[in-house]
Amino acid sequence: MLKINDGSLHEECAVFGFFNGGNVNAAQIAYQCLFSMQHRGQDGAGLAGASGNNVHLHKDTGLINEVFSKQVLDEFNKDEILVGHVRYATSSSVTMLDTQPLVMHGYEGFIAMAHNGHIVNGNEVRRELQKRGVLFQTSVDSEALMHIIAGNRDGIEAGIKDLIATVKGSYALTLMCPDKLIGVRDPWGIRPLAIGRLGDCYILASESCAFNAIGAAFIRDVKPGEIVIITSSGLQSIQTQPKKNTSLCVFEYVYFARNDSCIDSVSVYQSRIRMGRYLSKTEPVEADIVSGVPDSAIPAAIGYANESGIPYGQCLIKNSYSGRTFIQDGQLNREQSVRMKLCAIHENVENKRIVLVDDSIVRGTNSMYIVKMLRNAGAKEIHMRIASPPVRFACHFGINTPNQKNLVGSYLAPEALAKRIGADSLAYLGIEDLVAAVGNKQIGLCCGCFDGVYPMPIEDVNA
Amino acid sequence: MLKINDGSLHEECAVFGFFNGGNVNAAQIAYQCLFSMQHRGQDGAGLAGASGNNVHLHKDTGLINEVFSKQVLDEFNKDEILVGHVRYATSSSVTMLDTQPLVMHGYEGFIAMAHNGHIVNGNEVRRELQKRGVLFQTSVDSEALMHIIAGNRDGIEAGIKDLIATVKGSYALTLMCPDKLIGVRDPWGIRPLAIGRLGDCYILASESCAFNAIGAAFIRDVKPGEIVIITSSGLQSIQTQPKKNTSLCVFEYVYFARNDSCIDSVSVYQSRIRMGRYLSKTEPVEADIVSGVPDSAIPAAIGYANESGIPYGQCLIKNSYSGRTFIQDGQLNREQSVRMKLCAIHENVENKRIVLVDDSIVRGTNSMYIVKMLRNAGAKEIHMRIASPPVRFACHFGINTPNQKNLVGSYLAPEALAKRIGADSLAYLGIEDLVAAVGNKQIGLCCGCFDGVYPMPIEDVNA
Amino acid sequence: MLKINDGSLHEECAVFGFFNGGNVNAAQIAYQCLFSMQHRGQDGAGLAGASGNNVHLHKDTGLINEVFSKQVLDEFNKDEILVGHVRYATSSSVTMLDTQPLVMHGYEGFIAMAHNGHIVNGNEVRRELQKRGVLFQTSVDSEALMHIIAGNRDGIEAGIKDLIATVKGSYALTLMCPDKLIGVRDPWGIRPLAIGRLGDCYILASESCAFNAIGAAFIRDVKPGEIVIITSSGLQSIQTQPKKNTSLCVFEYVYFARNDSCIDSVSVYQSRIRMGRYLSKTEPVEADIVSGVPDSAIPAAIGYANESGIPYGQCLIKNSYSGRTFIQDGQLNREQSVRMKLCAIHENVENKRIVLVDDSIVRGTNSMYIVKMLRNAGAKEIHMRIASPPVRFACHFGINTPNQKNLVGSYLAPEALAKRIGADSLAYLGIEDLVAAVGNKQIGLCCGCFDGVYPMPIEDVNA
Amino acid sequence: MLKINDGSLHEECAVFGFFNGGNVNAAQIAYQCLFSMQHRGQDGAGLAGASGNNVHLHKDTGLINEVFSKQVLDEFNKDEILVGHVRYATSSSVTMLDTQPLVMHGYEGFIAMAHNGHIVNGNEVRRELQKRGVLFQTSVDSEALMHIIAGNRDGIEAGIKDLIATVKGSYALTLMCPDKLIGVRDPWGIRPLAIGRLGDCYILASESCAFNAIGAAFIRDVKPGEIVIITSSGLQSIQTQPKKNTSLCVFEYVYFARNDSCIDSVSVYQSRIRMGRYLSKTEPVEADIVSGVPDSAIPAAIGYANESGIPYGQCLIKNSYSGRTFIQDGQLNREQSVRMKLCAIHENVENKRIVLVDDSIVRGTNSMYIVKMLRNAGAKEIHMRIASPPVRFACHFGINTPNQKNLVGSYLAPEALAKRIGADSLAYLGIEDLVAAVGNKQIGLCCGCFDGVYPMPIEDVNA
Repeated sequence: MLKINDGSLHEECAVFGFFNGGNVNAAQIAYQCLFSMQHRGQDGAGLAGASGNNVHLHKDTGLINEVFSKQVLDEFNKDEILVGHVRYATSSSVTMLDTQPLVMHGYEGFIAMAHNGHIVNGNEVRRELQKRGVLFQTSVDSEALMHIIAGNRDGIEAGIKDLIATVKGSYALTLMCPDKLIGVRDPWGIRPLAIGRLGDCYILASESCAFNAIGAAFIRDVKPGEIVIITSSGLQSIQTQPKKNTSLCVFEYVYFARNDSCIDSVSVYQSRIRMGRYLSKTEPVEADIVSGVPDSAIPAAIGYANESGIPYGQCLIKNSYSGRTFIQDGQLNREQSVRMKLCAIHENVENKRIVLVDDSIVRGTNSMYIVKMLRNAGAKEIHMRIASPPVRFACHFGINTPNQKNLVGSYLAPEALAKRIGADSLAYLGIEDLVAAVGNKQIGLCCGCFDGVYPMPIEDVNA
Repeated sequence: MLKINDGSLHEECAVFGFFNGGNVNAAQIAYQCLFSMQHRGQDGAGLAGASGNNVHLHKDTGLINEVFSKQVLDEFNKDEILVGHVRYATSSSVTMLDTQPLVMHGYEGFIAMAHNGHIVNGNEVRRELQKRGVLFQTSVDSEALMHIIAGNRDGIEAGIKDLIATVKGSYALTLMCPDKLIGVRDPWGIRPLAIGRLGDCYILASESCAFNAIGAAFIRDVKPGEIVIITSSGLQSIQTQPKKNTSLCVFEYVYFARNDSCIDSVSVYQSRIRMGRYLSKTEPVEADIVSGVPDSAIPAAIGYANESGIPYGQCLIKNSYSGRTFIQDGQLNREQSVRMKLCAIHENVENKRIVLVDDSIVRGTNSMYIVKMLRNAGAKEIHMRIASPPVRFACHFGINTPNQKNLVGSYLAPEALAKRIGADSLAYLGIEDLVAAVGNKQIGLCCGCFDGVYPMPIEDVNA
Repeated sequence: MLKINDGSLHEECAVFGFFNGGNVNAAQIAYQCLFSMQHRGQDGAGLAGASGNNVHLHKDTGLINEVFSKQVLDEFNKDEILVGHVRYATSSSVTMLDTQPLVMHGYEGFIAMAHNGHIVNGNEVRRELQKRGVLFQTSVDSEALMHIIAGNRDGIEAGIKDLIATVKGSYALTLMCPDKLIGVRDPWGIRPLAIGRLGDCYILASESCAFNAIGAAFIRDVKPGEIVIITSSGLQSIQTQPKKNTSLCVFEYVYFARNDSCIDSVSVYQSRIRMGRYLSKTEPVEADIVSGVPDSAIPAAIGYANESGIPYGQCLIKNSYSGRTFIQDGQLNREQSVRMKLCAIHENVENKRIVLVDDSIVRGTNSMYIVKMLRNAGAKEIHMRIASPPVRFACHFGINTPNQKNLVGSYLAPEALAKRIGADSLAYLGIEDLVAAVGNKQIGLCCGCFDGVYPMPIEDVNA
Repeated sequence: MLKINDGSLHEECAVFGFFNGGNVNAAQIAYQCLFSMQHRGQDGAGLAGASGNNVHLHKDTGLINEVFSKQVLDEFNKDEILVGHVRYATSSSVTMLDTQPLVMHGYEGFIAMAHNGHIVNGNEVRRELQKRGVLFQTSVDSEALMHIIAGNRDGIEAGIKDLIATVKGSYALTLMCPDKLIGVRDPWGIRPLAIGRLGDCYILASESCAFNAIGAAFIRDVKPGEIVIITSSGLQSIQTQPKKNTSLCVFEYVYFARNDSCIDSVSVYQSRIRMGRYLSKTEPVEADIVSGVPDSAIPAAIGYANESGIPYGQCLIKNSYSGRTFIQDGQLNREQSVRMKLCAIHENVENKRIVLVDDSIVRGTNSMYIVKMLRNAGAKEIHMRIASPPVRFACHFGINTPNQKNLVGSYLAPEALAKRIGADSLAYLGIEDLVAAVGNKQIGLCCGCFDGVYPMPIEDVNA
């Protein structure tokens, strides 16, 4: 499978869990929930389903609708517990062996797990386990996590506590063993995990948009360091000591999460509207129209427009068929790709002074082609407004950031960048304003990719 | 291949033609142009390419990126002339034999053709040709048209004149024979066809958005009854007598065409903005927010908001992975499909009085589930505003309208329809306002699906 | 689809027809019959099925089991009449448009046809039809034949008589139009066609092995120039004047036909046994063992062994998975291909004087590698005995012969060829002995590829 | 993937190993060797390739040519060491996770393994490992074997000795770790394993036919209990204590192995010839012709014919396209399947008294349809002669035997069986004669499926 790097940052995965308390078609629920989180990973998908002590697994590379035919999906109809996963692959080659969930069979029965996040001391953990005799069959962190969990013979909860105590990094996990569905969120709370309910069924999902997709109720977020155990007796919680500096990844609000999700009591959509408002206040400019780069920057653009009083309008529209690799790599260059994906609405562009809001700038190449496209359509002035600070540092918690030397924000000042991409001006949202716009006081935010301040020391950086 | 009827009206196809005046990679141009018109047909695609007297063809069912691998596409790299097609299939089963272009070999050499439109007297024409000994190998109108053209031994132009003289219905055609690319638009001008230029190359396309996709210049629209002939000596025009009541299909502006297209000197985007403005004037309502059903009704919603002064906002967002059949038919019901495709933004919905603008109503079922979704998200009031009149009559010119008894606008008054779908009110744009909003004075408009008035008598209705 | 030229001569196609006189599962019958004739064409397959005036078609490139899924096949279950085809493609690229049957719709209804053979004056016939206004959509001869047939308005039988009167070349045809299944064999009888019966159903097939596959009774062969018409009233025959020099293609006995087929009252198997016997008489040699190149030369080897008294044994065995392209072209060279396909049985080879019987020699390369393989396994002497004369001339009636300069028999005497391929001796069966061994006195034989004497003048040779 | 149970017994897999001592294209060697052993497993295939400490893996369900495209294969071109596998799956559903080789990463680096055989105390071994904390990710025995090997920290050789000491069952293994290729054969020698050489390269393969496929020299068989270690310094051997009752699976000679293989110094082909000869001596009958059921029983038939003096002939011929699932299960019944696969040569059958030799009888159903086919072709007498004793017991060492109640030889005497299948007589080869015919004095033979005498106690029978 070939991946096209479109220059954006990308999330690594979503997790899902389902406890079939009623007599529900579990397969369909799972499909709709995973599908609603497809934006978090398009490289692979999988489901493990259990009834009593029996477990079965289907996973593969590709989009959800490629991985699951109706026939395959139907095998999960009657399952009591399910865990699922969609995968974003950081490397260019993706094999079935590295997709999730993983299912393992130990002395006490099976254990299945899906993982979203990245282990900072992954090599060290892996090496330590190998020293103890563990053999690894995949290249994914999840395999190490499962060996830690299963390594404690006092039960899965004890094993998960070991994991929380020893592993550094981000992890939102959904696990199942016979008769139990379990959710775990790392003690920093870096990756999100939410609990939903549909009748007598429980759902765990990386984003609450999954609950919307099936008409389920949002119950609450799993807390940093919390272990949530769902059995036929209901939901139980074990709260391990969370870190003092809990910090959800701010990029969830900036770009990753779907607009209809709500993470740690903060509406993703509203936070984006506020980012635009704050940006308008700190980086105003005279213009005729405010527009956003579709789809992710639209709310920030609306916020900017509402705050500034400059009318909102669509200067760029997205081709609805550009969802995925439309041609083999190398056939189209980056500029052609941008032109296949976006088109300018001349009436809103010609002779107009435009505020163009984007959610973030990583490499800057896409922005250059977008500006060029607007110039060709007759734009008089183009003012780029970025609803987040410059991305200047690598992420160590699951985001696929390019090498620092490719992060244009790390070496070019706004004026220089404006010049390079051909804009009349370019300005970012300040980091304090971003934090204020999000307003996640409950957990706090990791802004490491903007300020290099991480919630834990980064010593052992995996390739 | 299975088709999911999502309840909307659908266009039948786009056509494309390319004359390689320079030394351009024809395959890539063709791919990008067809891709930009994918919204006009997702059931099949094809390209015929010619160099001198040699012609080759590749076509199949499926999306453009499924039909054309890099390897297949590369065979068209060096071609001098190309015609291409994307197909929307009206029937549920789609076979390769019924995809286009068609290529035929006659005494004077090859002729290849792509057709967008529908022949009203198709059965009669076919029968007449059969009587003369013609054998048909496909079920598409285009085959009959080609036999008419080739039936005149005085050259392809004479044949096309015969076609214009005898065939009733809509047709935008791209044809090629050795060394000539030809474009034809029916004398009523029902289907659009535009001419573009890129250096020394000419492009013909159903919509001007194709020119945007490759950075080509829009030259002009082909006129009703015009035959445009492109050779190495340049572009020649033969203007046959157009009908008095020329009339472009109004649904191009209402729904089909891409926002960045411009048809017969009218910007599609601006016409939609105006539809919203006129709708606001004639059907005002007190509300907190104006929103549109994505993607097609967004401009009309913006127009309504701007005119009314009620703020524009996103109450519904579209899942970017819902572009195509995401699961086999029967697995999901219509309500689930709507929930997989759209999601509500609670913050813009809860306790809000909403004006929800949609482009048209066909069956009314989707609207019902959308209203339900907004109610569940806490909407206080929902006022549906439809930026076109009720669809009440069948189309005979290439649009796949359901049986009249399924056209909810043909038997339910707005109040009754509002009640059925659960809205607090529902109102349509009047037909005169629609016509005024579009303002296509050059050609006029066919509003047959709204008023039953067609540009020609409809006697022989094909199944 | 990629084709590997294995150096053998290849047949072009088999035809099939079925009249469902009972209430039989027509799809299954068709599948089994076509499958039993897969050896006559591996590049494409198709079926057209009719009930009353309705006809439907499925065809594609590939093997029968690739073209027909159970689901697709089931659509033919209830059909009253079927025609089918398997295709051997002479050119390297094979497209769906050139597979058969062809189905055409004329004034009197549909006509569907499958054709085995080759038209000698094909270009002339095609050109003549084009002059009359016919447009061709494929590159196969069958299309011209159908236009000739349909060109006579006095009915299909009259049209077929026209065809027989005007077309030069080989053709075994199965046709259907509403309520009629028709079989036609050219007046020279070059290609075979047989009639079978199963209860109240009639079957037409290129080879009688198809009847064995379904347990049907062999009735008789269609005669040269005969038109067989099957309706619900039974079988009717129209006998047009056969040519004086009727002549079945001798290669049917030499190589093409399946051993359990019987053509024109001659058992294919027995004819091959006799070829071996005659070869033993005319080209005896002292040896320890007689063996054949699998699979086609086994009967001739047995015949040689029985006649000579030298024991028969297996020196070479065929890999049962080598049925088709096992790796992409270019990965393996010809020698490796031979080694993937055949293996030597050391015990029968080492220190043995071997008579190795093959059915024919075309290019001689395979023989060279086979001899080398036997030498490596320790053969003391290798005496090649070819159960047919040297192939020295092109075939104009449907066999894919290479360019004459590649026919090793046309320029190398047996001694020189033996030397080139490394054999101790090499000898052919004489042409009179071949004819005597077959003994088809009823029809006579075309031995054009051996002696250049064709049943009709060859003027217009198609590319 | 759907499997069709054709009623025969089936082998479980072949293993392969390659040490690239020269500068050879390893991928092509591997492909040709695996392809030559395709008869041992058609459900999956895989290759692991190593260069220094790096290892990569490709495997999947399907035939070798389906699993390996040229592109995928090319990635193995430059590898220094390879292990490969073809898989026969005992269960009906086959997933990629259960294909081989397995690759694991431990403290000392990677280890990759392919396994042919079956572990008798598999559950016990697995349970014991789980007790020690091992987590299993597949359902294949090989995973347990690798954990045993890696469990000894004194090196891979020490681990393999542990395995030999503790595991009961059959296993031929190819393993690799950085810079070493290793072959292991269980101390009973139940499964075969051979060593070949091509220039400076070593090959390990389940059957010596793999060496023939690439023109490599056969060196010798791995001995029971032997560990063969190949490094850049050449081949080293560690001989652990073999069992007293070493015993190669007799079915390798009866049916599994390819005719050109030689196992433990016994030519498979010659052993089959002798089986036929002995059968002729002990079970003579007056007849006109001796024939074998293709392909496996042909040598025994030739042996029977030679011994008896009755002429050998082909009464049945195999369709060369019947290699694999030709239609979806349920479409054809068993009788139709037999008719698709085999056809009768009337000339050799009609009015003939036939000795029909088959290699073995499992369920008896195929025999019944074959006899019926010969009767329909006019056979006067049919005398079934089976070149092995009745299969009466389950195999515990890797052969997929049906439930004992389905083994027709376990409950029907020859006369009764003859009657049931419609033969005039039926007789088996005696077990002593079979053993004598094979004559494997070096190792001895396991005839457990015939006599229930196994080389080790069978306590823990896995499902």
